[in-house]
Amino acid sequence: MPTLTDTDSFVAALRAQARRYHDQHPFHVEMNAGRLSRRQIQGWVANRFYYQENIPRKDAAILANCPDREVRRRWIRRILDHDGTAGEGGGIDAWLRLGEAVGLSREEVCDGQHLLPGVRFAVDAYVTFARTRPWVEAVASSLTELFAPDLMAERLAAFERYYPWIDRAGLGYFRARLTQAPRDSEHALRVVTEHCRSAEEQARAVAALSFKCDVLWSILDAIDHAYPD
Amino acid sequence: MPTLTDTDSFVAALRAQARRYHDQHPFHVEMNAGRLSRRQIQGWVANRFYYQENIPRKDAAILANCPDREVRRRWIRRILDHDGTAGEGGGIDAWLRLGEAVGLSREEVCDGQHLLPGVRFAVDAYVTFARTRPWVEAVASSLTELFAPDLMAERLAAFERYYPWIDRAGLGYFRARLTQAPRDSEHALRVVTEHCRSAEEQARAVAALSFKCDVLWSILDAIDHAYPD
Repeated sequence: MPTLTDTDSFVAALRAQARRYHDQHPFHVEMNAGRLSRRQIQGWVANRFYYQENIPRKDAAILANCPDREVRRRWIRRILDHDGTAGEGGGIDAWLRLGEAVGLSREEVCDGQHLLPGVRFAVDAYVTFARTRPWVEAVASSLTELFAPDLMAERLAAFERYYPWIDRAGLGYFRARLTQAPRDSEHALRVVTEHCRSAEEQARAVAALSFKCDVLWSILDAIDHAYPD
Repeated sequence: MPTLTDTDSFVAALRAQARRYHDQHPFHVEMNAGRLSRRQIQGWVANRFYYQENIPRKDAAILANCPDREVRRRWIRRILDHDGTAGEGGGIDAWLRLGEAVGLSREEVCDGQHLLPGVRFAVDAYVTFARTRPWVEAVASSLTELFAPDLMAERLAAFERYYPWIDRAGLGYFRARLTQAPRDSEHALRVVTEHCRSAEEQARAVAALSFKCDVLWSILDAIDHAYPD
């Protein structure tokens, strides 16, 4: 059994990946400073949809690989939150409403006509990671949610302040994530700290989170290059 | 677009796989005729648990491979039914109660001490099929549920008549499947008929269902040989 200090330093190493989180990407810095054009915002929303669209499949891959029923019973909530149920829309619907709020039709968001190759490659790499790596590593890769609430709060404030042309009713996705992300990351962190006991397991978890930071960063690289000022 | 006749003959070809369903396996024939010993019933319950245990992972693999959100929103109910939720137990819990009713502890069912290699191989082949084959074929492989209700009804009657030593409270799994299986197979059949339009696609769906019949049959072969009269 690890000492308390071991777990503490493991969690600290995970949290330290915040320095590689995409809130520091130039495109997000520009977004939150109110300096993106309508076309740049549209390009981001349309491309980021491919990520949103693939999240339930990534989470289902984790379920498929996870032999622990208690973890599955909790993890499945992510798919329900995102896909929605017969009764209520989920995160994907909310992102499509964001698309409409920034002037994109559901059709042009869903049919992938704006989708950039670099975005596709990065998202596909993430889904493949969840399919093919041990499920605990895939859970660790979700821990960028530890860093998400701050970015969401900053983004909500920036959108309301700098982009008055975007209908506030379209910002529901970000608002929902303010509560979903901490709840989900708390569970994921508990799973990861319970299952990664050896130094090697802990190093693989940190590497998984680092990989996920690369995925998110690459998505913005592709968008930033495709939609210059 | 196929003619109505095309769809009809496709559905007929799927339903014709009933002739290869495991209700006709000698072990099930003996079971429903009341001729199995306590040890044989126990061996069946303990081994079949490995199948039950892996069903949610099979269904999650289908979700992970399925790009159609509407299908996912319906398919996920299978996982919830089987894994259960925080509030209520699901099919796996119900099978563990069946285990207790036939005199097996939860521990000895869950730890796999009775699990036969042939059962493991067959179940693993099914999960691998769902992971690696196109998702529509995996959906087609689930269509043994078309044939399940008749077997469940016959089995319930046989258990109540011939095996009075089994506590009836342990038969909840079979009762639940009497309504779940028709509901689930109706959906799966709709998905398969909508997606399999060409003769080749329809042939692959029939082959998937045939494969699934082989999986169920092989499980009983292994059990039948391990627990002779």
